[in-house]
Amino acid sequence: MSSRPMDWENVLNEIDSIIQPSRGQGRVADYIPALATVDPMKFGLAVALGDGNVHTLGDADEYFSIQSISKVFTLSMVLRKVGDELWESVGREPSGSPFNSIVQLELEGGIPRNPLINAGAIVVTDHLVQQQGADATIAELIERMRTLASDSAIHVDQAVAYSESEAGSRNRALAYFLKSFGNLRSPVEETLKAYFSHCAIAMNCRQLARAALFLAFDGTDPISGIQMVSSKACRRVNAVMMTCGHYDNSGDFTYRIGLPGKSGVGGGILVVAPGNGAIAVWSPGLNEAGTSEVGSLALETLVRQTGWSVFV
Amino acid sequence: MSSRPMDWENVLNEIDSIIQPSRGQGRVADYIPALATVDPMKFGLAVALGDGNVHTLGDADEYFSIQSISKVFTLSMVLRKVGDELWESVGREPSGSPFNSIVQLELEGGIPRNPLINAGAIVVTDHLVQQQGADATIAELIERMRTLASDSAIHVDQAVAYSESEAGSRNRALAYFLKSFGNLRSPVEETLKAYFSHCAIAMNCRQLARAALFLAFDGTDPISGIQMVSSKACRRVNAVMMTCGHYDNSGDFTYRIGLPGKSGVGGGILVVAPGNGAIAVWSPGLNEAGTSEVGSLALETLVRQTGWSVFV
Amino acid sequence: MSSRPMDWENVLNEIDSIIQPSRGQGRVADYIPALATVDPMKFGLAVALGDGNVHTLGDADEYFSIQSISKVFTLSMVLRKVGDELWESVGREPSGSPFNSIVQLELEGGIPRNPLINAGAIVVTDHLVQQQGADATIAELIERMRTLASDSAIHVDQAVAYSESEAGSRNRALAYFLKSFGNLRSPVEETLKAYFSHCAIAMNCRQLARAALFLAFDGTDPISGIQMVSSKACRRVNAVMMTCGHYDNSGDFTYRIGLPGKSGVGGGILVVAPGNGAIAVWSPGLNEAGTSEVGSLALETLVRQTGWSVFV
Amino acid sequence: MSSRPMDWENVLNEIDSIIQPSRGQGRVADYIPALATVDPMKFGLAVALGDGNVHTLGDADEYFSIQSISKVFTLSMVLRKVGDELWESVGREPSGSPFNSIVQLELEGGIPRNPLINAGAIVVTDHLVQQQGADATIAELIERMRTLASDSAIHVDQAVAYSESEAGSRNRALAYFLKSFGNLRSPVEETLKAYFSHCAIAMNCRQLARAALFLAFDGTDPISGIQMVSSKACRRVNAVMMTCGHYDNSGDFTYRIGLPGKSGVGGGILVVAPGNGAIAVWSPGLNEAGTSEVGSLALETLVRQTGWSVFV
Repeated sequence: MSSRPMDWENVLNEIDSIIQPSRGQGRVADYIPALATVDPMKFGLAVALGDGNVHTLGDADEYFSIQSISKVFTLSMVLRKVGDELWESVGREPSGSPFNSIVQLELEGGIPRNPLINAGAIVVTDHLVQQQGADATIAELIERMRTLASDSAIHVDQAVAYSESEAGSRNRALAYFLKSFGNLRSPVEETLKAYFSHCAIAMNCRQLARAALFLAFDGTDPISGIQMVSSKACRRVNAVMMTCGHYDNSGDFTYRIGLPGKSGVGGGILVVAPGNGAIAVWSPGLNEAGTSEVGSLALETLVRQTGWSVFV
Repeated sequence: MSSRPMDWENVLNEIDSIIQPSRGQGRVADYIPALATVDPMKFGLAVALGDGNVHTLGDADEYFSIQSISKVFTLSMVLRKVGDELWESVGREPSGSPFNSIVQLELEGGIPRNPLINAGAIVVTDHLVQQQGADATIAELIERMRTLASDSAIHVDQAVAYSESEAGSRNRALAYFLKSFGNLRSPVEETLKAYFSHCAIAMNCRQLARAALFLAFDGTDPISGIQMVSSKACRRVNAVMMTCGHYDNSGDFTYRIGLPGKSGVGGGILVVAPGNGAIAVWSPGLNEAGTSEVGSLALETLVRQTGWSVFV
Repeated sequence: MSSRPMDWENVLNEIDSIIQPSRGQGRVADYIPALATVDPMKFGLAVALGDGNVHTLGDADEYFSIQSISKVFTLSMVLRKVGDELWESVGREPSGSPFNSIVQLELEGGIPRNPLINAGAIVVTDHLVQQQGADATIAELIERMRTLASDSAIHVDQAVAYSESEAGSRNRALAYFLKSFGNLRSPVEETLKAYFSHCAIAMNCRQLARAALFLAFDGTDPISGIQMVSSKACRRVNAVMMTCGHYDNSGDFTYRIGLPGKSGVGGGILVVAPGNGAIAVWSPGLNEAGTSEVGSLALETLVRQTGWSVFV
Repeated sequence: MSSRPMDWENVLNEIDSIIQPSRGQGRVADYIPALATVDPMKFGLAVALGDGNVHTLGDADEYFSIQSISKVFTLSMVLRKVGDELWESVGREPSGSPFNSIVQLELEGGIPRNPLINAGAIVVTDHLVQQQGADATIAELIERMRTLASDSAIHVDQAVAYSESEAGSRNRALAYFLKSFGNLRSPVEETLKAYFSHCAIAMNCRQLARAALFLAFDGTDPISGIQMVSSKACRRVNAVMMTCGHYDNSGDFTYRIGLPGKSGVGGGILVVAPGNGAIAVWSPGLNEAGTSEVGSLALETLVRQTGWSVFV
């Protein structure tokens, strides 16, 4: 975009000075113990660039639960394996509703609005599970992420996965509801096993930014040259992130950050800057809509410093 | 983005060859006679650039009813005059619901989801009407557009405005519903007069692309130097267009075109390419969601040729 | 039902002793001044029997605004004049929803759930207005009630009607919404004029019980012998009152009182005891669902004393 | 009600002559094989009176699946065992919505509208299961019905129960959804085991009418003298049946039959005539709302002949 090289030291210093007074703000997710006990003062950020460089700040090497951010990777995976047939079982429009998915699911005959709300992500996972079962699905997903991030330490936090399953009545209700509409192909518990597992993937910011770099480069990882998804599928994933990536504050996030992204209740946010790079930020305190509060602030600053917003 | 100049003749030729076989596709809006009688074979396109050049194709100088596209201009106007206070009376999140606005309006206590759905646009217009009345609001709006487009022929089609009002029971229901929640400041008929009038503005593609150029340049028209809105407000307008600009196919539009835009049931689409230009396209046949079918195809081609999608 | 004559003095004494400690309970409707200023300590009750006797208690001769109770009379009138054709434009099932009518109205294509919710009652009134205009409709309605009650003092309280219209944005929204679905035949304001007028009818308990006696005797007033509605229509009115007569506490009312009835926000309740008589009670304080609190208590006592509940 | 004895031979002959031309009408439930294969020409009816007499017509001794009619018995049972505390976890108002329970369940925070819709009946069953487990609950329920009907042949059709469970995704979704709101006390599968079992109870009309006779006599079986529920609870059950007993045609049923009742998709209908008796009718063909078509016709005739409607 710009001809002179970005002064990353300066950018990161600016972010650091902006977020320091806000550290610890927001409310840590507490529906499972494994999330509730995370230190709210944590903050990490990593920017992965097309040339292989990764710039980091703070707790960028500390692991956290990526939660819903995993939906971006399962969506990419299913588009590679199943292709456009996916769109017969899930939509790609914003859900835009504070009383979430199950109402729309009933009104729309069991077709979730998009692949980033829970019901839609369950359908995505179910397609993968149908092809190869839960264990192989998770194994392949983890393997891919390790390869992209060149780091074999990425793993599923089994304690978190177990807790998710224990606390998972609402997701079970969604899954059985989908099944009652004929929109679930595998046994409910098999699909949910995979779903809870990928939500429980533990990564750090450095790994996450690196693993998502292909989304900023038309579907192909610029470092390894591996094509993760087609150019068309890559654009689709970015578009869905832009319109649906942040629960009921997707509109606001799009305005403030101006880039496709996905939030997780673990406090992580993944953002894609097409042609430039991928950014992962983590700070556990969430705003009312479930997006990391300090993370959003950091991204807003980064975008202002880099001029990466798509709207300017 | 690219360093060498765009070959516009080639781009337009490519668009022309792609859309010719599809001319006439889609269904012309027929809820008022003035729209129903438009020739479905019409097609026009104009690209306004930052350097003042406007490239056109087909019926780019023919007038059409801009309908909901006007909401982008009233939103810009109210952000200039009222500012962020607006967001107390209207949201900025996608509505994402096929059974449109009134259900959400009731569930969310009379606060429309965003300024581009009818209920939200009525609130926007109402703020303007409260400040200066319906007639002065429309006069100022038209005057601004004439100035930006350097063309005094832009006007309200009074026959269309009259028909809109005659057929306007649902919009009246929305307005009274807003009023019952205390979210309408002016007399209902005064606000609706302005609303129906701006929806009935007649423009051609050339004028429309030109008038919207400020949205591609951070709020300031690059030709005249007039600041229409602040940089912040401009980004907000673009973000809202990106997530909410095309009824219930905003997600799909964002994927296919990858640019902020706004559709109107008259068959027009306005698209903003930040830093590059503004594009207006017109073709009366609509897809099921109410967006111009051939218009979308033309934009998809243009974006592929120019590389202007924000996702690549 | 019972062979020995009812000891009405005893029944009324029992009611009186039960309600005295509760006088003034509940919340007086305050959305228009004319209702807000009513003395909350008021309490009246009248029981009209098939033999022409009317037993009263308290402020039974004081006028109050019958509000939604009028819907029972317009429903009877439209069933006489229009007949079963009515059911093409309005349903007869409980609405059962705390977020009231407009949501269902949209989801069900403009057909209100039943004639006792506002949207349904507007459709009923509209049928009458279509036949003879607003003024003649109201004139005939009042005339009928005067004849049945043998009391020419029954009248429309014009101040209340005016206030209703002034505060009537939500009802206007409903009416325009119905119109947008093609389910309103007359001009909106003409229909609403009649609607607001019949809601503003002022009666006392004695008149109201007397005027409704035909509903307890299969459609024919047992005193004058006038057939108000067919036996079939009478049963329909009673059934609709039983399932839908009291907003979102119809189920509870049916349990406690066990008789068809209709509440009004003016604090009146009309109850029909088939084969026995009609009861009107009035006490301005409402419970959370909008039904007179002390009025319900009085009716519960009356039913216990008389054994008139249909469930025992 | 009437002093001279009812001529039951004449009443049953009249019913028979009315229903014969309609035999086989309606659509047999086909979501599980065990129901789909029932002969649509079947028709049975039994009237149990307070004096111990039972009058029957047609296939009154043939067993059928009582399905949702069982909800009346579990409701009675839970009111005896848990009492009014039940109403903290389930409402008693009509649901009145064609897009059934799960939407309201979400909007109303996990509290079902009433105990006769599936979600509400699951909560009722869950209370029983919490007290004594699934097996003992069903055992006690069956034992009670056998005692009341003086017939030890009443049983759970295990094949039906198994099929219900196999096809039970929607009910599982409801149960997990209730659990996610904290409104399910027992393990989901344990509660559902009891729920599917009581829906699969096989009875004939004679047994069913006899077993329900207590509901017509203030909660106490007039033959054995056993008090099944308190007078107050009995009135509550009858009121809930009257307003909510027949899915989305409760209003229409109340008008046509004028008595509290409950339909099952097996084609059975149970009706209570307070002070007079209990009627069970069975004919497998259902109307659009899921109520037995010929069964309704038979009940309409019976009520006309007996004068038992509560509205005349």
